[in-house]
Amino acid sequence: MNKARIGLIGFGTVGSGVVKILKERAGKILDATGVELELAGVCDTDAGRRKEAEAEGAKILRSADEAIAASDIVVELIGGTDAAYDITRKALEAGKPVVTANKALIATRGSDLFAVARKSGTCMAFEAAVCAGVPVIASLRDGFASNRVTSLLGIVNGTSNYVLTKMSREGWTYEDALEEAQRRGYAETDPTLDVEGVDSAHKIAILSRLAFGAAFDFETVYTEGITRITPQDIHYAQEFGYVIKLLAVARNEEKLDVRVHPALLPKDHPLTFADGSLNAVCITGDAAGTVMLHGKGAGQMPTAGAVVSDLVDVALGRAAATFEHLKAFSENVERKEPVGMDDIETRYYARIMVDDKPGVLSTISGILGKNDISIASVIQMERDVVKAVPIVMMTHHARERDMRAAVAEIDGQDIVREPCLYMRVEQ
Amino acid sequence: MNKARIGLIGFGTVGSGVVKILKERAGKILDATGVELELAGVCDTDAGRRKEAEAEGAKILRSADEAIAASDIVVELIGGTDAAYDITRKALEAGKPVVTANKALIATRGSDLFAVARKSGTCMAFEAAVCAGVPVIASLRDGFASNRVTSLLGIVNGTSNYVLTKMSREGWTYEDALEEAQRRGYAETDPTLDVEGVDSAHKIAILSRLAFGAAFDFETVYTEGITRITPQDIHYAQEFGYVIKLLAVARNEEKLDVRVHPALLPKDHPLTFADGSLNAVCITGDAAGTVMLHGKGAGQMPTAGAVVSDLVDVALGRAAATFEHLKAFSENVERKEPVGMDDIETRYYARIMVDDKPGVLSTISGILGKNDISIASVIQMERDVVKAVPIVMMTHHARERDMRAAVAEIDGQDIVREPCLYMRVEQ
Repeated sequence: MNKARIGLIGFGTVGSGVVKILKERAGKILDATGVELELAGVCDTDAGRRKEAEAEGAKILRSADEAIAASDIVVELIGGTDAAYDITRKALEAGKPVVTANKALIATRGSDLFAVARKSGTCMAFEAAVCAGVPVIASLRDGFASNRVTSLLGIVNGTSNYVLTKMSREGWTYEDALEEAQRRGYAETDPTLDVEGVDSAHKIAILSRLAFGAAFDFETVYTEGITRITPQDIHYAQEFGYVIKLLAVARNEEKLDVRVHPALLPKDHPLTFADGSLNAVCITGDAAGTVMLHGKGAGQMPTAGAVVSDLVDVALGRAAATFEHLKAFSENVERKEPVGMDDIETRYYARIMVDDKPGVLSTISGILGKNDISIASVIQMERDVVKAVPIVMMTHHARERDMRAAVAEIDGQDIVREPCLYMRVEQ
Repeated sequence: MNKARIGLIGFGTVGSGVVKILKERAGKILDATGVELELAGVCDTDAGRRKEAEAEGAKILRSADEAIAASDIVVELIGGTDAAYDITRKALEAGKPVVTANKALIATRGSDLFAVARKSGTCMAFEAAVCAGVPVIASLRDGFASNRVTSLLGIVNGTSNYVLTKMSREGWTYEDALEEAQRRGYAETDPTLDVEGVDSAHKIAILSRLAFGAAFDFETVYTEGITRITPQDIHYAQEFGYVIKLLAVARNEEKLDVRVHPALLPKDHPLTFADGSLNAVCITGDAAGTVMLHGKGAGQMPTAGAVVSDLVDVALGRAAATFEHLKAFSENVERKEPVGMDDIETRYYARIMVDDKPGVLSTISGILGKNDISIASVIQMERDVVKAVPIVMMTHHARERDMRAAVAEIDGQDIVREPCLYMRVEQ
């Protein structure tokens, strides 16, 4: 279609950014791409937002149904997975393509929705759902079409990355860094989805499906957040030559290895370059090698820009051409078994807070040895009769199953003051 | 088209990589994208290469004409701009889409060829022409469709970057580093196009047209190579806190500022992260902010992978949908005036080899001052009665016109032993 009427559902931060771009750049976009994007109208359940939209010159539509009826392409920006699912489904059933920035929706109910889209001969586009304006979806979908993608490694949550960067650069505590992130608008009032890794899990689940063309349940993605990390851990990791990042990992081997957790990255690893609220993703394919994409993974205009680029994609028919056949989200895609976390093998960082008594290190290392875990290096702090002291160590390669068993046994010792914190090392 | 017969013209390094991918992955590509890519045949003027292609099971076609006739999509991989132009034009006139990795062809004769393609209702795709498997063309074309792109900064020539990295890391001379690059296959026997910046100029010209949607003559791109840089320059730049890279710059202001030259980048600049033969491009848009793409910008499989991804793009109709309207390479695109190099303003690094006599620095700084150039910092080496000694300096912001005038005057002094070397600083 050369002319597309846009029905915008949800006039929050990103929605108002979309209206701004359409107002300012529709002429240039027509000029450059041959696509005329026209805002049919906006609907939002919030009266204040409706007023704002009206002030921007947008026509107010009374319901999602009305927005769907009035448009050639529907933009869903209300978030969540309930109402958003119903609206998206209705739009697709009506044969209207949907552009969304909703990562939770695509990660948890994407296959369903794509099945509906196919049945109705229409499509969805969701570049804005992962890393905003960093074109990682397009890269996987188009640029890597000839590659067997073997792995994805990403820092895909700006909030967590901001918090860890502040802890690392300024020596702040987790709590202080989070507060500053909230003050700056990088973190929600309830930051759970971000700091517990759920947001990253949604994103890596979407990327994995595109990259590997295999289906798996979102619930199987192992997810661990950053809330237990202390400035001490950051400091010790640095001593060992590492940086701590909340990492999204996906590997396509016999089984699928998709997980999110804090990890130690060597200081010169490409991803450590993503600091503050920035995102970065490394895609490794058998032909292209490793390609890294890096930039703002969130924020009003980067996300709104990705939505509008998707509108061009849909209007030009590119999205339909891509997703008509793309197996990643189809019904008859191969299902792959997830690797159980017990079976992964890696090196570990561990911090164990102990009473400073003679023989403590020997007890701990005895338990590790018994569980087939050998210590690569260890830092034991000097004596302190009042407080617990940390024993900090890096292990050689070990199985997670063994590590868990060892940690359970260590945590059961009288001399241990708080549950052992351990993190995986990514080379 | 769901099934596409591929006519491959040119069975060199990249061509044989394309055949390898088609042999190994055609099934997977069909599976993932719905596109069946079938090699119709290969033609090459070299008998040895024909033999190799035959050994790979490819049908040998006797001429480019035969390859065009036998195929649905033509892949041009012979390089150069004469025969390649004729073949590409013939294919397009016959209504056959062309996929090419030929940067010189697209940079210098792209507009011509796109005009032919439009007239015949077909298209070209050329992701492989810039940074191989790093999807920078697709990102500009699709991901940044909603953005006003304001600037591009790139390290887009692996050979030069390898040479400068070796000089920087190991203290090697330019000559030794180039020899090693040739030994490793990173540099051609005649490395002129790479080390003199012409290859980078081709690439930044293509990217600029896509990014800015404006036309300009390739000949207006200012191009300067790395052959005069010495290990001393690398060392002094480091002292000042900079890294020397061969930089491709493009800015879209009142006039177009597109140029290639060695430049000093601050040590923490994102692009300095591209070391060895790697490439990196920073794209800055008004919505997305700065996105960096980083990876292998050359080599057999990365380039062949990009060609095959383009085949999928063409077969799915995405390339046609994109380029049908894309103004960047159309006849009626706005032509923009280039900024004259005389008019750019930047900071400079300069090294002047002088006789070590009293008053030399005062002479030099006098000439600079007269030309409106003020010195930010200077390093003058201790006395040496035999050899010339370097005066090395960083200037404040100055106009290139003034810098050139000053350098001409400095070079005319009796105390100056060789032409002054100066480089621009990019912040």
